[in-house]
Amino acid sequence: MSLNGQIVLKERPRGEAKASHFEYREAPIPSPQAGEVVVKHHFLSLDPYMRGRMDESKSYAAPQNLGEVMIGGTVGEVVASQSPLLKVGDRVVGMGGWQHYACSSAKAWRRIEDDRVPLSHYLGAVGMPGVTAWMGLVRIIEPKAGETITVSAASGAVGSAVGFLAKQRGCRVVGIAGGADKCRYVVDELGFDDCVDYKQYSDVMGLSKALKVACPNGIDGHFENVGGRVMDAVMIRTNAFARLAVCGMIAGYNGEPIPMQYPQLILTNRLKVQGFIVSEHMDVWPGALKELAAAVGSGQFRPRETVAHGLKSAPEAFLGLLKGANFGKQVVNLLENPA
Amino acid sequence: MSLNGQIVLKERPRGEAKASHFEYREAPIPSPQAGEVVVKHHFLSLDPYMRGRMDESKSYAAPQNLGEVMIGGTVGEVVASQSPLLKVGDRVVGMGGWQHYACSSAKAWRRIEDDRVPLSHYLGAVGMPGVTAWMGLVRIIEPKAGETITVSAASGAVGSAVGFLAKQRGCRVVGIAGGADKCRYVVDELGFDDCVDYKQYSDVMGLSKALKVACPNGIDGHFENVGGRVMDAVMIRTNAFARLAVCGMIAGYNGEPIPMQYPQLILTNRLKVQGFIVSEHMDVWPGALKELAAAVGSGQFRPRETVAHGLKSAPEAFLGLLKGANFGKQVVNLLENPA
Repeated sequence: MSLNGQIVLKERPRGEAKASHFEYREAPIPSPQAGEVVVKHHFLSLDPYMRGRMDESKSYAAPQNLGEVMIGGTVGEVVASQSPLLKVGDRVVGMGGWQHYACSSAKAWRRIEDDRVPLSHYLGAVGMPGVTAWMGLVRIIEPKAGETITVSAASGAVGSAVGFLAKQRGCRVVGIAGGADKCRYVVDELGFDDCVDYKQYSDVMGLSKALKVACPNGIDGHFENVGGRVMDAVMIRTNAFARLAVCGMIAGYNGEPIPMQYPQLILTNRLKVQGFIVSEHMDVWPGALKELAAAVGSGQFRPRETVAHGLKSAPEAFLGLLKGANFGKQVVNLLENPA
Repeated sequence: MSLNGQIVLKERPRGEAKASHFEYREAPIPSPQAGEVVVKHHFLSLDPYMRGRMDESKSYAAPQNLGEVMIGGTVGEVVASQSPLLKVGDRVVGMGGWQHYACSSAKAWRRIEDDRVPLSHYLGAVGMPGVTAWMGLVRIIEPKAGETITVSAASGAVGSAVGFLAKQRGCRVVGIAGGADKCRYVVDELGFDDCVDYKQYSDVMGLSKALKVACPNGIDGHFENVGGRVMDAVMIRTNAFARLAVCGMIAGYNGEPIPMQYPQLILTNRLKVQGFIVSEHMDVWPGALKELAAAVGSGQFRPRETVAHGLKSAPEAFLGLLKGANFGKQVVNLLENPA
């Protein structure tokens, strides 16, 4: 066997994350101990939450340690097993990290049974982003047929699933995305009713007016992936008793202040604004994954992916993701360009 | 019968409300039509929500019309009746407005049965403010024994009831109030575990540090009556899954912007932040009033009142309330100083 290529966190960013904060290294591939498996990764998932882990400051999870392999979701196949739970050849999904091979307890992996779904989708629509969408929409927003639901970062892995699931529930769904290409995709390919290009508006009021046109009956539920002025503009258009699920605050990951401009709307519109992270709601995973796997497997839901080529491309692809350069779910194909 | 003294809204404020926005006038006391009663008011309630009604801008209720009697809760006794529902001498509570006599449908009034409770408390602890406290605490914060609950404007009608009800449920209760006198009252008379004087701290971080001392285990639930930097400081000290009931944003009633400084805490601490107004939750009133009447009737809960003398004192007393000049529930004794 060759060596195991890995990317570790070398330095914590002060402000913007840069490629120089990461480092590529090689290490021996460990042999599995009793109860463990070695998984050869096919795809690595890149997600906005990783930016939070790079900081030492308080986030919803322990920070990524310096000098250790970056945390990340992966799919691949078992190439060595010392566990009765998984055998060589099994396809699995788990948190293998930014590396070619992961060696860990077999219990840390979930076996993939459904072969109708392409493997990489287990990192997206039929994985953590999809369940995140399900949790925020179904459990926090609790949409009713006929209601208007908005979602920011609508073309992304989470946003596209929010839109699909809300349409399935009979809602009017309006996306918010950056750029004409993404908005076209959201409407034409994902089937949203409308999409507002936030880059067309330099201030909250302009964006809010565009949302008024796209949401003539106001906004009953909103799935927030971004924060900042997008959320401010949405809040202005909320109806009484609207529910806002807060999943991401990407605008604030670099530490700059992003005040909420009109918190009094929480009172005047009797809003519920609730933050969540999906790993704390394991009870919803089975039901959510079942609905999502059926939708992707049948071709009813066809979310896009942006695929980076090879492990060494992961840092730049990740930094692009933070700037919205990706289109749909960002993954890295780890079978390409091995070191 | 003499004429009916009334105070009407003469002008809408631009910015700060002033006494000149109100006008005293006299009108004949109407005779009751079929189904109606005339109530002679003993006490008028003054409440922060009234400031919102003075504006034309979007609030949670229709604005107060110009030239009409100011809206307001009242208690008094029936002096004329054309309804089988109420008889002369019955003590009632309702929305009689800023005037000596109200004539309206008997159905608009609730008869008071419990004579252990002084009449004015039906405008406070055993009325709308008490039920507001109950709703936000019990239905939104959902406190568990051993949790730490904070409440702003802790010495006020709503805040004092929040503290009492949270103590009854086995919580550590920490008030936030303005000035040493109010803080002493909150701890010594109301029985809170601690009280932070926000006037001692000129910035959010100073106030937040004081809250850390008073809440060594963090904050699990918060009842917000004020907004602005008090809420910012509380949010910094919230534990994971804390619940914030937003009842008042008094700092914003004059239209000045009061941004929420750290909305990202909604995500990192997985907060639920929910606004409500008690009149939309009529289902909670009977149970809440029962608990509150028993507590006040038995003397277990003894909230203070600030009493203004006579109808003409209402505008100045109301403006004082908006600035925190009152101590506990602000009422006006309408039997004093009749015109």
